[in-house]
Amino acid sequence: MKHIALLGSTGSIGIQTTDVIRNHPEEFKLFAMAFGRNVEKALPLVEEFNPAIIVVQDEETKTKLSEQNVQAEILAGSNGMKEIATHDHVDILVNAIMGSVGLEATLGAIESHKQVALANKETLVTAGHLVMEAAKKNQVDILPVDSEHSAIYQCLNGENRKDVNKITLTASGGSFRDKSRSDLEGVTVEDALNHPNWSMGAKITIDSATMMNKGLEVIEAHWLFDISYDDIDVIQHRESVIHSMVEFKDKSVIAQLGTPDMRVPIQYALTFPNRLEMQETKTLNLVEIGKLHFEEMDFDRFPCLRMAYEAGRAGGTMPTVLNAANEQAVALFLEGKISFLTIEALIERALEEHEVIPKPTLDTIVAVDQETRTRIKSYVK
Amino acid sequence: MKHIALLGSTGSIGIQTTDVIRNHPEEFKLFAMAFGRNVEKALPLVEEFNPAIIVVQDEETKTKLSEQNVQAEILAGSNGMKEIATHDHVDILVNAIMGSVGLEATLGAIESHKQVALANKETLVTAGHLVMEAAKKNQVDILPVDSEHSAIYQCLNGENRKDVNKITLTASGGSFRDKSRSDLEGVTVEDALNHPNWSMGAKITIDSATMMNKGLEVIEAHWLFDISYDDIDVIQHRESVIHSMVEFKDKSVIAQLGTPDMRVPIQYALTFPNRLEMQETKTLNLVEIGKLHFEEMDFDRFPCLRMAYEAGRAGGTMPTVLNAANEQAVALFLEGKISFLTIEALIERALEEHEVIPKPTLDTIVAVDQETRTRIKSYVK
Repeated sequence: MKHIALLGSTGSIGIQTTDVIRNHPEEFKLFAMAFGRNVEKALPLVEEFNPAIIVVQDEETKTKLSEQNVQAEILAGSNGMKEIATHDHVDILVNAIMGSVGLEATLGAIESHKQVALANKETLVTAGHLVMEAAKKNQVDILPVDSEHSAIYQCLNGENRKDVNKITLTASGGSFRDKSRSDLEGVTVEDALNHPNWSMGAKITIDSATMMNKGLEVIEAHWLFDISYDDIDVIQHRESVIHSMVEFKDKSVIAQLGTPDMRVPIQYALTFPNRLEMQETKTLNLVEIGKLHFEEMDFDRFPCLRMAYEAGRAGGTMPTVLNAANEQAVALFLEGKISFLTIEALIERALEEHEVIPKPTLDTIVAVDQETRTRIKSYVK
Repeated sequence: MKHIALLGSTGSIGIQTTDVIRNHPEEFKLFAMAFGRNVEKALPLVEEFNPAIIVVQDEETKTKLSEQNVQAEILAGSNGMKEIATHDHVDILVNAIMGSVGLEATLGAIESHKQVALANKETLVTAGHLVMEAAKKNQVDILPVDSEHSAIYQCLNGENRKDVNKITLTASGGSFRDKSRSDLEGVTVEDALNHPNWSMGAKITIDSATMMNKGLEVIEAHWLFDISYDDIDVIQHRESVIHSMVEFKDKSVIAQLGTPDMRVPIQYALTFPNRLEMQETKTLNLVEIGKLHFEEMDFDRFPCLRMAYEAGRAGGTMPTVLNAANEQAVALFLEGKISFLTIEALIERALEEHEVIPKPTLDTIVAVDQETRTRIKSYVK
């Protein structure tokens, strides 16, 4: 029985993680869960899984939750998250918090020798050097929950890393893949949230439309698989059937395929190196699908992808700026304060104005992250 | 340095095996080679690789080869093949002989604890129960050289066999995939030999056109991967880019892809679990290919595939009849003595007239094989 600490329980990945736990009660126990302020969404999970510890964002939510008939110990804030991430009874930390707030919990879990299932890509984007160094030092497995990185992890299973030529991430193209640059002038938040293949949270759906999601994944892949940016390709594959692939030095390519269901990579991160039944997931039927399409990625069409490669290659604090600028710009777009195309313009400006700090500490990363968010907000005043 | 004994040196797989050995002189040594009667084709290989032992089909060829300036020991016949397959200095037997004559050599190599790279699918089709039992008992790896089975072997690398749901073999459809049954009435040998994707020997190219090749592969897969016929699918995939795939119980699918080059699976069988550079092989470029197609296999259109499943499920000597009847019928077609559609009619008749003998010994298999060939010839007198 593996004891799980789940950060981001009420988000899209969090809810799907509880699906996996529910389907395998003999394998997993939700020992601790963290969420923000959404008590209504959290309560049914609390009742069902009866976790020993619950962490909420602030004292107000703690009070609100305490008024319910909850037996668990209730903690608040980032210290609470760190406490459950490092708790003696926890075997696996599932970090499914959007943004960079989950970083300290991840580092704590690694130092406490927990297996880490990472759905929080910003952790690797902003602090990949710190996370992977800690993981290596503590001999901890970082299991990716992104479908693309899970695919690559699966393709590398049983292989020698030194035999890898390159990895190829596939991109559906997002909500606007068939629109030209000029078509994008007047798109609405609603248009952008209509993703063709995956049902995900709002922020990541916008990131798919700008292709920043794929850009962040490129940087994540660089750190997770210790691979040069020159050896990471992105191709457009509208069906999202091939989730990603690895080419080895004998030109043999191993790919992972499946129907779009995030519970598959989530479960794999919890069961690796084994697998468990996944009955609710639809079986892949290539005959029914008929055709798979592959197109070149256009870096002029999707400048966010170009900027991500550039920020990744620049290294240091540059990916932190990329990520923070993007988070803030997407928030402004979702609030209706800027247009879709302004997202990338703001990010570009933030990157241009930043002077890279090499090998940043955690404090520096947090400071640059905050500074960048403030800067982005200042651009639109 | 691995010492290799190569059976079938002058055939298509044999020649490509020498390509692999040539490209990695620091890894491989062609210690012994066997061929039939084609001294002209063998001599350049003998000169280049200077094997210690050469085996030829008969005394006449031995005399002919002895007249050349050859330093190797020269042996003749199946005893010679068995001798090199079991030789103390040999690490890997590459069995690339068409037909069922290589079976004894394979069993000898297994009992001598050699790694076996098997391109001779008839060995498994006719005597899978004997070969796999011997391999298990002697803890010997049977590495498949067929691109489809090599693909599955690669997809299973690092996985637990018990986690497999099913395997899917892909079929290009062969030379006549776009022809209807009635279109096949008047096709010539030349038409049949024109395979769209792979450059192979004549017999296997005809087997691709009748789909018997895929049928034999289904039976081979059954034995190699210890998997029920119900869990082996065949789909048509005209580009031959996905060589085959495995679905696991979490619905995750792992596939192996590549450009069509038999040297990749040959080399993998020699290097497993490692990989070596394969510089001459074209890199797979999915963007250039653009689309991959998948279609259902039509068992009425391709009765040989149906018959192969039936013979496999019947078990015992039935696959031996299937294979021997097919070899003889294809030979008659290549000699211009029967039409293309008569190939399958003769096989069907041989299967119908055979009473299955369960768990046959090697002697029984050889006897049934001979009897079937004689019977097929008798049909066309």
